[in-house]
Amino acid sequence: MFSVQTYQSRRSTLQKQVSSGVLLFLGNIENPINFEHNTYPFRQDSTFLYYFGIPAPYLAAIIDIDNDKTIIFGNELSIDDIVWTGQQESLKDKSLKCGVQETRPFAQLASYLQQAKKSDRTIHYLPPYQSSNKLLLGELLQVNPKEINPSVPFIKAVVAQRSIKENQEIAEIEKALAVSTEMHLLAMRTAQVSIQERHIAAAIQHYAYDHNCNFAYPPIVTVHGEILHNAYQQNFLKEGDMILNDSGAETAMGYAADLTRTFPVSGRFTTRQRDLYNVVLKAFEGARERLKPGVQFKDVHLLSARHLVEGLVDVGLMKGDPEEAVQAHAHTLFFQCGLGHMMGLDVHDMEDLGEQYVGYTEQEPKDTSTFGLKSLRLGRELQTGFVLTVEPGIYIIPELIDRWKKENKLSQFINYDLLESYRDFGGIRIEDNFLITNDGFRLLGPELIKSVEDIENYRTNHVQ
Amino acid sequence: MFSVQTYQSRRSTLQKQVSSGVLLFLGNIENPINFEHNTYPFRQDSTFLYYFGIPAPYLAAIIDIDNDKTIIFGNELSIDDIVWTGQQESLKDKSLKCGVQETRPFAQLASYLQQAKKSDRTIHYLPPYQSSNKLLLGELLQVNPKEINPSVPFIKAVVAQRSIKENQEIAEIEKALAVSTEMHLLAMRTAQVSIQERHIAAAIQHYAYDHNCNFAYPPIVTVHGEILHNAYQQNFLKEGDMILNDSGAETAMGYAADLTRTFPVSGRFTTRQRDLYNVVLKAFEGARERLKPGVQFKDVHLLSARHLVEGLVDVGLMKGDPEEAVQAHAHTLFFQCGLGHMMGLDVHDMEDLGEQYVGYTEQEPKDTSTFGLKSLRLGRELQTGFVLTVEPGIYIIPELIDRWKKENKLSQFINYDLLESYRDFGGIRIEDNFLITNDGFRLLGPELIKSVEDIENYRTNHVQ
Ligand SMILES: [Mn+2]
Ligand SMILES: [Mn+2]
Repeated sequence: MFSVQTYQSRRSTLQKQVSSGVLLFLGNIENPINFEHNTYPFRQDSTFLYYFGIPAPYLAAIIDIDNDKTIIFGNELSIDDIVWTGQQESLKDKSLKCGVQETRPFAQLASYLQQAKKSDRTIHYLPPYQSSNKLLLGELLQVNPKEINPSVPFIKAVVAQRSIKENQEIAEIEKALAVSTEMHLLAMRTAQVSIQERHIAAAIQHYAYDHNCNFAYPPIVTVHGEILHNAYQQNFLKEGDMILNDSGAETAMGYAADLTRTFPVSGRFTTRQRDLYNVVLKAFEGARERLKPGVQFKDVHLLSARHLVEGLVDVGLMKGDPEEAVQAHAHTLFFQCGLGHMMGLDVHDMEDLGEQYVGYTEQEPKDTSTFGLKSLRLGRELQTGFVLTVEPGIYIIPELIDRWKKENKLSQFINYDLLESYRDFGGIRIEDNFLITNDGFRLLGPELIKSVEDIENYRTNHVQ
Repeated sequence: MFSVQTYQSRRSTLQKQVSSGVLLFLGNIENPINFEHNTYPFRQDSTFLYYFGIPAPYLAAIIDIDNDKTIIFGNELSIDDIVWTGQQESLKDKSLKCGVQETRPFAQLASYLQQAKKSDRTIHYLPPYQSSNKLLLGELLQVNPKEINPSVPFIKAVVAQRSIKENQEIAEIEKALAVSTEMHLLAMRTAQVSIQERHIAAAIQHYAYDHNCNFAYPPIVTVHGEILHNAYQQNFLKEGDMILNDSGAETAMGYAADLTRTFPVSGRFTTRQRDLYNVVLKAFEGARERLKPGVQFKDVHLLSARHLVEGLVDVGLMKGDPEEAVQAHAHTLFFQCGLGHMMGLDVHDMEDLGEQYVGYTEQEPKDTSTFGLKSLRLGRELQTGFVLTVEPGIYIIPELIDRWKKENKLSQFINYDLLESYRDFGGIRIEDNFLITNDGFRLLGPELIKSVEDIENYRTNHVQ
């Protein structure tokens, strides 16, 4: 946990921002896998962590702004419990560590809220994402779970605070990145012909766990990097394959890292692989150099797309004027998703609170209809203190090519004939994490190799 | 998956057993960790696996007994989905593999059920354990999630079937045990002074994952074996500690193993450790030899307790007549929990369906008030085809000793003075998995070393 003052000051800022009513924070529970007492690893809700820091299940908290009261609701262990669990720090003591003096049994939360409701005070709550909290909110507020109506002022105040990272948060993110960087090097050393993808995933999970971290998200470790939502890890690595490894650690305090590297199983890229890799690398570097406060991330995304198109024209897969191609969204045949997202206590930071508040503003809302832009999680103007990812890629998706080709879609920009010979090419992504600083950006964490030369040298020196 | 015939025949048996109404089966979903799209590893519901075998999320099924119709409800991937996920086997094809011809979109499930309800037909469903299915049932049946009322005939029919393991199921359990046995040997090789418990847990998870398995449950790997519900793995191993390792693999098809071994960090047990270890081993062997059809497992539990008391009397920690001590439940100061439980697709098999149906019968219900017996998950008469665990232990729990001692509880059987010098002793458990056969029992999986001599030799030969 951070200092008592950290949590007190975060809460006091929040309280001033929302100004009236009761702020309700629901912690997470231990979620059942296949029966009630066989549970997934516990992960506290990130907003609860941000304001209270306690990584324990079955807690809730309120900040009663009108009465200037902060209370944590949860149950102390009974003597019976202690027989089974051993002595544990009391809830009282845990609460004192985040500066909350008052704790009450969990069962008293409902009546507290109902009392407030009776006096026509507003109960502010955030959008629930775990079903258990949807059920709980229904009970607490005596509404149908379908009628849950989160508080926009509460969401906006939380987003405003959590978006600007404190130095101690950046230090935690860099801790996650130090471990993640080693995970990526280990993956490069582990990969070899005829092992399964899951073998690599298991090795890097082992490394993360040994270094007091977990995965921040289910890793993508695949020879089919073009499949963007890919959890399958049963393929065997073959000579000539590239591996796309998108994985990151989460520290014990909950801070994430999110790195992607793509490297050849055989130690050397083929000519085609090297050429497209360098196109992605140029798009990455072009985007990175543009990062600074006041810039719209949507523009950085489109700039990166422009670099991709220029490179694809050089390779011969695209043609025509790159600027016009980007305006026509022709790059989305190769780059279907977004350039990056906010990162912090969540790998997609605050995604539970709603992309429209985190990645966009009311003045500059998301384009939810254009293929490509509708998958861009972050579009807004950057501010000092934002932490975000930059992750351009080229993905050769046979199903998408077939659809576009059938319609002869944007054929003034696409060289469909040559593209046919790339059908099985796969996908390439390069991803690092950056802090926006007053005068630009800072790479977070150690520098992880990414040039063709560095990767080939590393692979050559480390593979048996 | 097993053969088409397997699933067809299981369903046909079930259908005959329940005889009328609609049987509703809810599969599991991908559960959110910290936001909707960051999810825990998917695990299908075990009963759904048993009757349909499809390990994919967002499915439900019905067996409409009155109309002799079986339908799987779920959504086929759209062409848009395929761009993100790659080509996947269709739901139709998956369903054919378990012999179900008819599939419908998930959204049609509610109206099917409401139709049946209107014609006053019974909709049978099982107790939901994941909150998502509590919410879903509420919506499907248009009732408050608190008014959910599972079908006892359905539960009983499922329990009757799943309790008797088929040969192919036993083969799967033995696959899980083959991997688990290696995990335990690896743990013994990995343990050494000054590493953290989590280091061992990470190593065995790595092994499981490399061998196409997952953990069947969160492993207990601890120097505090006396803490029965212990997920903490941050302790550093010290000379003189014992490690209790309760961990098991789950195969890709969902079958579990559940093994416990306790071994000394230093390679050799101390005299006290060896003596109590041998007491537990004798209780283990005594219980094992008693396993056969027709025997009440509650009696095996009490017999095992009697062996523990006899050993504890020899050591001097207990006194008086062992039979009387067990009748007075004096052994529960050392052995607070149950001797074992059913095992299969769940590590505590069918625990979601209710212990009163799985481990007990109406004629011989559970003793829910006596300390010790109230934690015995299995008490009923054994039948050929049951798979269960045997896991006696001795747990020296300071908090419990203090409570009993203050009341001078059962002091005719307990040597409280000597016990004081054992306060920091820890805990020992030995656990294997058995099949009940016509003429007794069969150890499942490979034999995993458990004598003091074998463990000390193995540790000595394998620790650097
Ligand atoms: Mn990312
Ligand atoms: Mn067990």
